Amino acid sequence: MAALPLAPGSTVGILGGGQLGRMLALAAARLGFDVAVLERQADSPAGRVAMKLIVGAYEDEAALEELAQLTDVVTYEFENVPAKSVEWLVTRGVEVAPGPKALAVAQDRVAEKTFLNANGAPTVAFAEADTPEAAVAAVAQIGAPALMKTRREGYDGKGQRWVEHAADAARVFAELGSVPVIVEARADFVRELSIIAARGRDGGTAVYPLAENHHEKGILRRSIAPAKAPKALQDRAERISARVLSGLEYVGVIGIELFELRDGTLLVNEIAPRVHNTGHWTMDGCEVDQFEQHIRAVAGWSLGPTHPTHQVEMLNLLGEEALAWRRFAAEPETRVHLYGKREAKPGRKMGHINRVKPL
Amino acid sequence: MAALPLAPGSTVGILGGGQLGRMLALAAARLGFDVAVLERQADSPAGRVAMKLIVGAYEDEAALEELAQLTDVVTYEFENVPAKSVEWLVTRGVEVAPGPKALAVAQDRVAEKTFLNANGAPTVAFAEADTPEAAVAAVAQIGAPALMKTRREGYDGKGQRWVEHAADAARVFAELGSVPVIVEARADFVRELSIIAARGRDGGTAVYPLAENHHEKGILRRSIAPAKAPKALQDRAERISARVLSGLEYVGVIGIELFELRDGTLLVNEIAPRVHNTGHWTMDGCEVDQFEQHIRAVAGWSLGPTHPTHQVEMLNLLGEEALAWRRFAAEPETRVHLYGKREAKPGRKMGHINRVKPL
Repeated sequence: MAALPLAPGSTVGILGGGQLGRMLALAAARLGFDVAVLERQADSPAGRVAMKLIVGAYEDEAALEELAQLTDVVTYEFENVPAKSVEWLVTRGVEVAPGPKALAVAQDRVAEKTFLNANGAPTVAFAEADTPEAAVAAVAQIGAPALMKTRREGYDGKGQRWVEHAADAARVFAELGSVPVIVEARADFVRELSIIAARGRDGGTAVYPLAENHHEKGILRRSIAPAKAPKALQDRAERISARVLSGLEYVGVIGIELFELRDGTLLVNEIAPRVHNTGHWTMDGCEVDQFEQHIRAVAGWSLGPTHPTHQVEMLNLLGEEALAWRRFAAEPETRVHLYGKREAKPGRKMGHINRVKPL
Repeated sequence: MAALPLAPGSTVGILGGGQLGRMLALAAARLGFDVAVLERQADSPAGRVAMKLIVGAYEDEAALEELAQLTDVVTYEFENVPAKSVEWLVTRGVEVAPGPKALAVAQDRVAEKTFLNANGAPTVAFAEADTPEAAVAAVAQIGAPALMKTRREGYDGKGQRWVEHAADAARVFAELGSVPVIVEARADFVRELSIIAARGRDGGTAVYPLAENHHEKGILRRSIAPAKAPKALQDRAERISARVLSGLEYVGVIGIELFELRDGTLLVNEIAPRVHNTGHWTMDGCEVDQFEQHIRAVAGWSLGPTHPTHQVEMLNLLGEEALAWRRFAAEPETRVHLYGKREAKPGRKMGHINRVKPL
């Protein structure tokens, strides 16, 4: 078993070699840790900054064995890592954080909403369906228009469709692959917010200010943080965070997406048991960013401060937008973060910029 | 030849695998660059976060060839890289920054002080000596007590001795290895300051606020930045920086150590053509720290802002002091930076902490 808090010089394992893994790896290195990344691709953003890259699938037992040999603590950049792989590591004595409970809840949208409602974190009404007939019944129950999503997988707007009329439900169910789905009521929200929160191994928590988020075609474009919000709204979001974190016996950083209703009610849209795109503003808006905070939590260190030092507008650079790096680099108020991805495919997250103003 | 400004996805080469190389590599990665490190040791702080580690001596032509193949731009963490190696890279079409002129000046204390005085950057009086007799004459000329230093090499107080009486000069000359030396007058200073400055490939410059530095046994213990200083003093330091940077046709970050005399006169103690220990406070005290600034400069990017956002007390963690990481990590005002060095030898720089207060 790992001796916690994890001493500098130890190796932190990361499942996943994308940009979140890269920024986690850089944060871990600042604190004196070495990093081992397990990733399917031989060339990846995180692999290129890690001490050790293990090339393999998440299910590859030889790769997992190598990771277990090298590391004391493992985390992940992506909530769809196989639960079995995490269990396998846990049985080998590796501390995996966030733990299996958070992963199980986050991997199934029905389990997620059930957990949230049971823990005093309200969501939109929802129903589940495994057959075309059940899908029709679910939409009839929830009321159209409703959002149909696959229960598992899906991100950045993939794996979900709007159902305008109950009569379309069977067709949409088929379009989504005839897999188990969740049907969600439409939230009549005034804006989308999110809150990044962390819980340490000692149960201590730390919560950043709310961010206001703008999506396009299901992909995050822009976050404004701290969001303009009365203290009561921030307090409400922090109470929700506290319930979610303790309900999941959580260790690490979590991203909680929220809908703000006209009357100030907050509904939880979804939770991501990892560092989160809407938390990238913390890299230039806080003394300790979400990546260092996550590493601190999983390593069993004390959590760092979360108060804002700057007002930040975070913009994702999608596809060829990143080619304008030269212009961004020349703007005095703009901090540039690029992920080292080789190909600027349309919609691909290539980097982000934080435009900052001292508070 | 490299196309400048250097596009993200390009590889930046770093000569030297220590903590300065590590922090440069992490900064380069944030901007989307890959990093190749050339370092003698197979296991090093910078090597563990680089995409590519080339193990070899700085003089090893095969290693240099490999570095030249991989990179468009090369920089160094250490001013005593062989001038020949830099020339070799330059003849291969690699852009090396800072350039050969800065390196030549910084590698020879007599050339350095001669350059400084010729460029309106005053220093203490000095004389050179190659023989015991000349050493005695030099001390007699400068006046005892005087500081005798080897002309080349030496750092953190190594390679230098005080000469209390001119009669001791021949003995001290022998103790220093009977190599060419410089004899420096004692500066009657009230405090030690330093300034971190940068110059881009377009000649644009950026200067950080002064830091106040405290040494023990020749090793930096503590920097306070921004230093308490009237605007006139900061202005004076910036004028010195500008002369040094343009005189060297400099590209990159430079550290300039200063003595402040009772009347506010600033003398230059020495210059380091690289990121500098007294600039570590910028990691938590500025929006763009000295490491990113250096990468921006050598890559031909615009320079970033240098205004302070926090008051910082930087403390070096020497040897076993770094074992107190757990306590430092628990202090809300303390940002922890550890270098991943395997052995906590006495006096070895294992990390630093920045204790911050918003300005």
